Amino acid sequence: MSTPSETRAPEPDAGTLAATASQYFRDLQARFCAAFEAFEPQSRFEARAWKKPDGHRLQGGGEARLLRGSVFEKVGVNVSHVWGVLAPEARAQVAGAAESEGRFTACGISLVAHMRNPYVPAMHMNLRYLATSRAWFGGGSDLTPTFPIDADTAEFHAALAAACATYRPGAYQEYKAWCDRYFYLPHRQEPRGVGGIFFDDLATGTDGREFAFVRAVGEAVLEVYPRIVARRKDAPYDEAARERLLVKRGRYVEFNLVYDRGTRFGFSTDADPDAYLMSLPPLVRW
Amino acid sequence: MSTPSETRAPEPDAGTLAATASQYFRDLQARFCAAFEAFEPQSRFEARAWKKPDGHRLQGGGEARLLRGSVFEKVGVNVSHVWGVLAPEARAQVAGAAESEGRFTACGISLVAHMRNPYVPAMHMNLRYLATSRAWFGGGSDLTPTFPIDADTAEFHAALAAACATYRPGAYQEYKAWCDRYFYLPHRQEPRGVGGIFFDDLATGTDGREFAFVRAVGEAVLEVYPRIVARRKDAPYDEAARERLLVKRGRYVEFNLVYDRGTRFGFSTDADPDAYLMSLPPLVRW
Repeated sequence: MSTPSETRAPEPDAGTLAATASQYFRDLQARFCAAFEAFEPQSRFEARAWKKPDGHRLQGGGEARLLRGSVFEKVGVNVSHVWGVLAPEARAQVAGAAESEGRFTACGISLVAHMRNPYVPAMHMNLRYLATSRAWFGGGSDLTPTFPIDADTAEFHAALAAACATYRPGAYQEYKAWCDRYFYLPHRQEPRGVGGIFFDDLATGTDGREFAFVRAVGEAVLEVYPRIVARRKDAPYDEAARERLLVKRGRYVEFNLVYDRGTRFGFSTDADPDAYLMSLPPLVRW
Repeated sequence: MSTPSETRAPEPDAGTLAATASQYFRDLQARFCAAFEAFEPQSRFEARAWKKPDGHRLQGGGEARLLRGSVFEKVGVNVSHVWGVLAPEARAQVAGAAESEGRFTACGISLVAHMRNPYVPAMHMNLRYLATSRAWFGGGSDLTPTFPIDADTAEFHAALAAACATYRPGAYQEYKAWCDRYFYLPHRQEPRGVGGIFFDDLATGTDGREFAFVRAVGEAVLEVYPRIVARRKDAPYDEAARERLLVKRGRYVEFNLVYDRGTRFGFSTDADPDAYLMSLPPLVRW
């Protein structure tokens, strides 16, 4: 991988949960990228580090890694860790930000993989930590196949269910249902994909259980998704299947630009559009 | 062109401005389709007529015409004429609808042309009439080239300026500025294209001047755009130029799904997504 010259912003909260979570997300980014590069004979992730300028209302930075390869047609794995004071108009959108007078810390990892072979499902994962006057984790992961294969769907869900089982009984059923509600296109009356889990507002206690759960999700996805990719990446396909993939990706674009909270929050900020739009597929047909 | 078996919904307002405008929009649809088909050696528009079911809160219908050809990679020319009672939650979005207890009539034509050759600009045109407790016309037309060519931009704007000059002094400057403000992507800090005109809320008087202006815009676009297409359709281009076209189209998708009022209004209704999403380009790269 090409290494940018400047990768780390100074952190205000060394030793805190934010710093620990941020370090985990950066490590997970490196491990996902290594796992994905192992499928690619030639292509490597390109990294782009960014940092909020000194004196800016927001501080911190992040690193976007993008690979366009032969198995992974386009895959982005981004981390960020920012802190500072939210703009007044953004405070209403973030829990506890009114009580913190806008002060916040946020770190997270976002991953979207669009695959060349129509029989390999696209995959999305996001894990994040936010602190204002409160502190909580959120995230999730889900699959979007063009041609759903029951065995792959079941294996992916089983991995997430096992991660959820380490947290508390009922978590998987609840977070699976939340995912199904969230990744749904009302105007098409169809789900984005075959689901996964989605969770938010997991308030952090003193026992580290929420962070342990988030790590369990990250480890589960890192383990199960490459296995599905390995199994399907060489499946034969024809031009008609490829066209179906491009049309399916259009639904993905519609969801992300119209409904996705993270993307729409990005539009309302001065954030780099190439960061919050990294989820958009490489080639799409309508 | 293939003709659908059922094309016309009964109209409640024969002889009114709504009926006259609707008839003009249907004729204009036929004339645009004929002008575009003249460029296509083989492809023809396919027509899909739709009609609100009897007893529905909304009545009327429309006709969507779509051609995927060799010069016009994807072009849609849609007309609709609907009336009835707006859902309570939609009334706040439509001027005068509170005072009419939701009763309205709307008719219009929408046209979006995405061209195969990267040196032919994409073109959008919309003309519409709405009546609630008030009645007004709105609309506009604009060009989105991948590689702006000054001569084409100037010719297109000159045609629109001439149409505006038949309406009132200053109209072109005002509607051009409105178009520039409207078709702008804040998150990219870039315009969608090279502009045109955009206007709304042209309250109808008794002298028919607003309808005459709207017709002048329709005639101007019908005259100037085929001339630009004819001039550029055989321009040589390489794969790199074609790739630039696909990336430029991504910005078009971002605008339409994130900002365009008509598209976003479509998402908030139970309208057919294939109708209000006909503007989306055939093939897009991110």
